Amino acid sequence: MKLERLFPALGWLRDYRRSDLTSDLLAGVIVTIMLIPQSLAYALLAGLPPQVGLYASILPLVAYAAFGSSRTLAVGPVAVVSLMTAASVSKVAAPGSPEYLAAALALALLSGLFLLALGLARLGAIANLLSHPVISGFISASAVLIAISQMKHILGVPVVGHSLAEILPSLAGNLGRLNLPTLAIGGAAIAFLFWVRGRLKPLLTRAGLGPRLADFVAKAGPVAAVVVGILAVRLLGLEAAGVAVVGEIPRGLPPLTVPAIDAELWLDLLPAAALISLVGFVETVSVAETLAAKRRQRIDANQELVGLGAANLAAAVTGGYPVTGGFARSVVNFAAGAQTPLAGVVTAVLIAVTAAFLTPLFFFLPQAVLAATIVVAVLSLVDLGAIRRTWRYSKGDFTAMAATIVVVLGVGVEAGILAGILLSIALFLWRTTRPHIAVVGQVPGSEHFRNVERHKVVESETVLTIRVDESLYFANSRFLEERILQLVAARPKVAHVVLMCPAVNFIDASALESLEAIADRLETAGVTLHLSEVKGPVMDRLQHSDFFEHLTGEVFLSQHAALRTLDPEASERARSSAPAALQLASGDG
Amino acid sequence: MKLERLFPALGWLRDYRRSDLTSDLLAGVIVTIMLIPQSLAYALLAGLPPQVGLYASILPLVAYAAFGSSRTLAVGPVAVVSLMTAASVSKVAAPGSPEYLAAALALALLSGLFLLALGLARLGAIANLLSHPVISGFISASAVLIAISQMKHILGVPVVGHSLAEILPSLAGNLGRLNLPTLAIGGAAIAFLFWVRGRLKPLLTRAGLGPRLADFVAKAGPVAAVVVGILAVRLLGLEAAGVAVVGEIPRGLPPLTVPAIDAELWLDLLPAAALISLVGFVETVSVAETLAAKRRQRIDANQELVGLGAANLAAAVTGGYPVTGGFARSVVNFAAGAQTPLAGVVTAVLIAVTAAFLTPLFFFLPQAVLAATIVVAVLSLVDLGAIRRTWRYSKGDFTAMAATIVVVLGVGVEAGILAGILLSIALFLWRTTRPHIAVVGQVPGSEHFRNVERHKVVESETVLTIRVDESLYFANSRFLEERILQLVAARPKVAHVVLMCPAVNFIDASALESLEAIADRLETAGVTLHLSEVKGPVMDRLQHSDFFEHLTGEVFLSQHAALRTLDPEASERARSSAPAALQLASGDG
Repeated sequence: MKLERLFPALGWLRDYRRSDLTSDLLAGVIVTIMLIPQSLAYALLAGLPPQVGLYASILPLVAYAAFGSSRTLAVGPVAVVSLMTAASVSKVAAPGSPEYLAAALALALLSGLFLLALGLARLGAIANLLSHPVISGFISASAVLIAISQMKHILGVPVVGHSLAEILPSLAGNLGRLNLPTLAIGGAAIAFLFWVRGRLKPLLTRAGLGPRLADFVAKAGPVAAVVVGILAVRLLGLEAAGVAVVGEIPRGLPPLTVPAIDAELWLDLLPAAALISLVGFVETVSVAETLAAKRRQRIDANQELVGLGAANLAAAVTGGYPVTGGFARSVVNFAAGAQTPLAGVVTAVLIAVTAAFLTPLFFFLPQAVLAATIVVAVLSLVDLGAIRRTWRYSKGDFTAMAATIVVVLGVGVEAGILAGILLSIALFLWRTTRPHIAVVGQVPGSEHFRNVERHKVVESETVLTIRVDESLYFANSRFLEERILQLVAARPKVAHVVLMCPAVNFIDASALESLEAIADRLETAGVTLHLSEVKGPVMDRLQHSDFFEHLTGEVFLSQHAALRTLDPEASERARSSAPAALQLASGDG
Repeated sequence: MKLERLFPALGWLRDYRRSDLTSDLLAGVIVTIMLIPQSLAYALLAGLPPQVGLYASILPLVAYAAFGSSRTLAVGPVAVVSLMTAASVSKVAAPGSPEYLAAALALALLSGLFLLALGLARLGAIANLLSHPVISGFISASAVLIAISQMKHILGVPVVGHSLAEILPSLAGNLGRLNLPTLAIGGAAIAFLFWVRGRLKPLLTRAGLGPRLADFVAKAGPVAAVVVGILAVRLLGLEAAGVAVVGEIPRGLPPLTVPAIDAELWLDLLPAAALISLVGFVETVSVAETLAAKRRQRIDANQELVGLGAANLAAAVTGGYPVTGGFARSVVNFAAGAQTPLAGVVTAVLIAVTAAFLTPLFFFLPQAVLAATIVVAVLSLVDLGAIRRTWRYSKGDFTAMAATIVVVLGVGVEAGILAGILLSIALFLWRTTRPHIAVVGQVPGSEHFRNVERHKVVESETVLTIRVDESLYFANSRFLEERILQLVAARPKVAHVVLMCPAVNFIDASALESLEAIADRLETAGVTLHLSEVKGPVMDRLQHSDFFEHLTGEVFLSQHAALRTLDPEASERARSSAPAALQLASGDG
């Protein structure tokens, strides 16, 4: 049992059935067909040699199969993480240099260790710091950035940079060196892939294919583009015309690699590794849970951390680069009927075969075609609907989202995600520094108390009841102090102040001092301070302080009891008042 | 009126009475007597020439008198800010060098601009980020650090460093070069000052002096120590014996100085300037408010920012260094009967006279005596009681406090205060990540609902009521999702889930998505989701989303109404049940 929690694989291996095998085999094959062009393309995007993409799609898949908790998640190289890899690694090494490869390995190692550490410490909750709007804004912006960064391959011009600020000028500057054959191939590939994605499936279904089969044929579009692209270059000798091809890919299984143990390098890469891990993890878990929910399966977030950690360590020791769960890929795997992570193992074996024997086939593969597959794949990640919804629902959340998008595009991915995280935290803190404080009165004919500005309620002249709609802590304690003293100052007849605390979930040491100060100052003004509807945990806490030496009044279980004690007449008037009286009462509120 | 808000001075100048003048004069004189040794000593602590301390005690006081909102606050050089100045300036320039002086001026300028900007933007609230435990821990730790850093003057050995990690080894290493005459003077001065502080006042009162007068005589202790120290060195020729003296202090009024406009230098000093400003501001406001409350006067926090900003700009253009409100000094000023900031102007004039004519008197003043006055002054800032209280009340707050203390002592003041701020924010976020979620039942014979684990309540079998005691936002939305689904899974008979939201003060976009997910998943499980007691502002917000397309149930104004609708039988049973039934009911809770 304990062992199975560490190796979820033991769970599904124990009751593995032959019927599972057939579906896992089918799913494995289909994912492979989809993964081969992707792994080559994303390696290109990460600024790495194509074979690195293949290597990252072999052992990591096996490692995840052993440790991951999702039955159908498909891991490997993905677009956003490849982009983040390129952005961070190119800061410490020159693209194409051996140092660049070494840094990518180190990055995978660090991500692996980081994820593993979080998982073993059961700290999956840290991913909560990435709010939905920030992550969705980040993905959309990254997708746009990736698409634009691929233009250099589509146009066949050299371009440098990792943000629009760098890419666009560089692109504009080199537009003169545009290579027409490359553009023809790239443009055709993009048009074809969009057609496949949008039109082919309905056509096939009308042609009588089953929807699932039609879907898989459509998903194989990139493979067709790759094949046609290779043939075109080969037969028309376009390489001579300046069409960049993938070229020689060393044949063979992944090499065993030992990432450099270099403190300085690690320190440089650590922040990037942490961000890559978090982004990858959040995406993975959301995919995994969506799929798991459909089959009433459970995902253990902390186990996912372990699984992804193992996968990245595997990538680090077999010449790969950071990997995570892929969205489209997992959906395909799920739809293809994958029952267990064995499907991932099947994919790994097939990719290994490809790396060992088939790489020469890709010599004439135009980089423009790979770029086209990336462009079409990532543009589906842009979610304008989410941006609109967030704007409509909350300007605060939208601010964080917009900041993420702007900074990702203008400065870079790391700065962007950081800006998003920090801003959303700052906005949350800011929100809680100005808590909603309402003066409440009794709803006629009931024991309920509501905001005098929103409801027709009865108010007492001598008892001022203030409801604080926020926990009290250092950032809002001074505001509370000022507000309450203002409210009292404006009501000379008031003899009692009741602080109604149904929404106060904790009171920290700073707020405690403020409450004591409030009680003392009210006392000097001849006003008694009472509390009502204090939560159990908060009350327990107060018992451990000398607050009750300062509190001049009592603590009431219910606000109704408080008013009945402090102003019986008003309390009775409220309980007995008829709707007619309301109009009057609402007058004061 | 508008003008008076900018120059509070206009307010008190208009109705200034002769009687005020006499008390302001007296207070001004007494504060001067206290301030002269302090200003020399704190300049020493800041690693600056003694006259800089005097310069910082002239124009800044006048500037604060014009713009400050407190009637009795006494500004000038203070211990903690001097320590922070030394720590930050020595990073960018060698002590004793002209660059060091220039950097101190730039620091004062930056603090001034920072404070002014905050004040004009009415952003005083930013100081709330410094929680009480963090600030009090910071002050105590800084006091210890200061006392230890002064040992070099008491022992007469050269010592370097701004943290115990640096100071202690350096101190130990040089102990051999200890200068006995210096130690004698320093030790005697410390003993004398402690005796004055502890014993002299009672003696004097018993000798028949009025308590206030006795207090002032005691406060003049440092002056006596200074005089005796000077005479001792002069008469016994201790200078030849290696006793370090203040030496030549240029005579004259403060020079007009123009702080260097050096982008790089400013960038290096900006963080320090911000921290110094915040710490100084928080301390100032707390002193000012304590004193103002005693005379029923008001403090405007944002106006205080303007006043302190003006004071620091004044320091920057007259050869000073960062200043702020001093605690002991202000208390003396208040007790001496100061009625208006004119008392500060009086002090400024007297210090100016001192700087212009009396500096030669201090030539033979032993640095050991100044160090002694610092040691005795700061040790009174160490507040062990606060540490004990915080520990008793909240381990979380204590953690932030302890971290601040440890980092201040081990690493330095800036790192310490930063660690405290970040940790207290992190702890607050962490606290809200795991909100208190209670299953509630109806209190028999009432319309109230309470936690089933804390109260004897009646529960419905088909209706599960869950009260969330926290606002719902990105950091806790996933936790909520998991908890609710767990609770439902454990209760097969449940057909309705009511989310009771009296303590939910806002729902951000991430939490909204989680709620929609919860509603959808419950629906697939045949369970309806309802809300009750949703706050007005939260409801308004939800109207702007498509949440109600997902919500399968209703939104009830009160939980009582919810239960009456969803399970009338249980609701009636609860209302009518007698105490006898309670024992039973409490069984399930």
